[in-house]
Amino acid sequence: MKKIGILGAGQLGRMLALAGYPLELDFFFYDTTGTPSVGLGNVSSDTSANLENPDLQTFIDSVDVVSYEFEHLPLQLAQHIEQKNTLHPSSRSLDVCQDRAKEKALFDRLGIPTPSYRVIDTEQGLIKAVEELGLPVVVKTTTEGYDGKGQFVIRQLEQCQEAWHTIGSRTLIVEAFVNFTRELSIIAVRATDDNIEVYPLAENQHNDGILRYSTAPAPRVDDETASQARSYAKELIHELDHVGILTLELFETEKGLVANEMAPRVHNSGHWSIEGAPCSQFENHLRAITGLPLGCTQASRPTCMINIIGEKGDIQSLLELPYAHVHLYAKEERPGRKLGHVTVQADSYEELVWRVNNVASLLPGSPEFGGYSTP
Amino acid sequence: MKKIGILGAGQLGRMLALAGYPLELDFFFYDTTGTPSVGLGNVSSDTSANLENPDLQTFIDSVDVVSYEFEHLPLQLAQHIEQKNTLHPSSRSLDVCQDRAKEKALFDRLGIPTPSYRVIDTEQGLIKAVEELGLPVVVKTTTEGYDGKGQFVIRQLEQCQEAWHTIGSRTLIVEAFVNFTRELSIIAVRATDDNIEVYPLAENQHNDGILRYSTAPAPRVDDETASQARSYAKELIHELDHVGILTLELFETEKGLVANEMAPRVHNSGHWSIEGAPCSQFENHLRAITGLPLGCTQASRPTCMINIIGEKGDIQSLLELPYAHVHLYAKEERPGRKLGHVTVQADSYEELVWRVNNVASLLPGSPEFGGYSTP
Repeated sequence: MKKIGILGAGQLGRMLALAGYPLELDFFFYDTTGTPSVGLGNVSSDTSANLENPDLQTFIDSVDVVSYEFEHLPLQLAQHIEQKNTLHPSSRSLDVCQDRAKEKALFDRLGIPTPSYRVIDTEQGLIKAVEELGLPVVVKTTTEGYDGKGQFVIRQLEQCQEAWHTIGSRTLIVEAFVNFTRELSIIAVRATDDNIEVYPLAENQHNDGILRYSTAPAPRVDDETASQARSYAKELIHELDHVGILTLELFETEKGLVANEMAPRVHNSGHWSIEGAPCSQFENHLRAITGLPLGCTQASRPTCMINIIGEKGDIQSLLELPYAHVHLYAKEERPGRKLGHVTVQADSYEELVWRVNNVASLLPGSPEFGGYSTP
Repeated sequence: MKKIGILGAGQLGRMLALAGYPLELDFFFYDTTGTPSVGLGNVSSDTSANLENPDLQTFIDSVDVVSYEFEHLPLQLAQHIEQKNTLHPSSRSLDVCQDRAKEKALFDRLGIPTPSYRVIDTEQGLIKAVEELGLPVVVKTTTEGYDGKGQFVIRQLEQCQEAWHTIGSRTLIVEAFVNFTRELSIIAVRATDDNIEVYPLAENQHNDGILRYSTAPAPRVDDETASQARSYAKELIHELDHVGILTLELFETEKGLVANEMAPRVHNSGHWSIEGAPCSQFENHLRAITGLPLGCTQASRPTCMINIIGEKGDIQSLLELPYAHVHLYAKEERPGRKLGHVTVQADSYEELVWRVNNVASLLPGSPEFGGYSTP
């Protein structure tokens, strides 16, 4: 039985383990956040991520391969592990995905369109960047932040000071605002032999910077767009020599797809694949990192994933819906926290919208779903 | 988070846990066989099933409700637990299902057809039973045996002595041989409020007494047969005041359905429901025993479960089949042992047969599938 080490111990690790037990894999988690919630397998925790911690050595020695569910972990930790055991994806993927400036440079180098940007590290630099790019702009930290954290939209020049101080005076990336019709994402998985499989594009709807709805296959995607997205994902995953799942977030604009950012891991916009594809993103990640053949990534029918955020809502009523698949993460309620998700499938997008709205009506604070935007 | 105690710690407990974590359930297993293989949750073991064992008290105190994955466990253990915590299904279901004579009496009382039988406890009684029932007969122990163990088919009167000594001289049940066209099973689940849901009939193909293939919905079932099977399952589960899953095995004969035996638990012939139904037998069992609403039991499309017996076979090649869902139980190979199963779905039975045969060709020792018998 192969033993899998996972850096991070949240819901992504939990869903990896649930997908991996049927493949006779066993799981060891190493948490650096201090709040492991995985509730499965063997868990060690060290918030200092001290490389001399004997628990770390035990973790490394106990497993056949190490992966991560979370890219915001110390790069040195990943590099240290990589010297002693196999790390998939490698620390290079982590390095690039942790730093928006490196990520942008990679997009540029591969000719993948991305919003115009400047990297700045002074308030003056911010003002100059805004003048060059034009308003509005989105300001983000280069090295941290997810789910909309560490971001600021500047709509008027005088907001530069506020943005600079709110985010906290460090190296920032300033991006031209993209007038997009919708947000899409695409998930690819690559095996050690460079075999690559790609899931269909998902359409993502956010609220307050947090993903709320993800639908796959994204409705109304023409062949050219689908093919373009697949090709971007494949180029990136191949270039990074990345083994496992890689997620690329995209904006759909009138001029075509524009890359937003990527994540070197299973992704919230791929949770639909547990019920919606023959082989889920979690199973495929494990297949990839353990040298097993990749599984089928085709969507069986229109599927939507609805996040449960902040409050669990009326779970009893959710379970009464014959089409709702409920996944809870065993986490305490807290505003903005991802506590679980619900997956719904249907034979048509019309029926899917109806079902998703029924689910959303049972989740307090869920923004209206309202169907799909017309590109 | 509710804590579930399971008596037994094999693959059924494992699949219960995998279905239960997304409902925020946690699992404690109490094994009396000495060979726990569950590989998940908290496991205690006591082959003597000593009621004074402090681990047993700890197990009982740790959980909110106790269930069992296995009916061949000491009745006193179940009754002891029932005095101290909630046991679902109750010890009454266990008592009836452990004893073929009691099971038969219940079938008789509810007017559910079952093969003619005699209960005997001497070799002379066996000969008399054979004379009354006519040859061939099937001789079984009343209180033990599963997967064809502890059974003997008598085709000639002079085999009575051999049968008596082979099985081991105890209370036996002698059944008239049933000329059946195929073996079916039906799985029902009942909630504490007497709400009952029933899965579609499955067609089961055995080899050497071990289930090899299970297809649901069973092909070519007329409405009357389906309705008859549902009504038998509902009568039994209601009569037993049974909370959780109950499985009824049936013979299809020219004169209609005949009850073979039942199991007070999730069943191998229901594994197809993990992929094949919106709510699997495992999830529905957990929903029932924790007071959650029952889930949808409808089959989405023709589904076949293929058991992996004795040897694991060519798992790499199995994983290459885009339509094969592989479930391994983390057990060592041993002749006749259930090591895992593969689930296959298709849009038609013709396509299903082709896919199942592809899977079977990768499993050493698998009997030919050959499609479905014509009733």
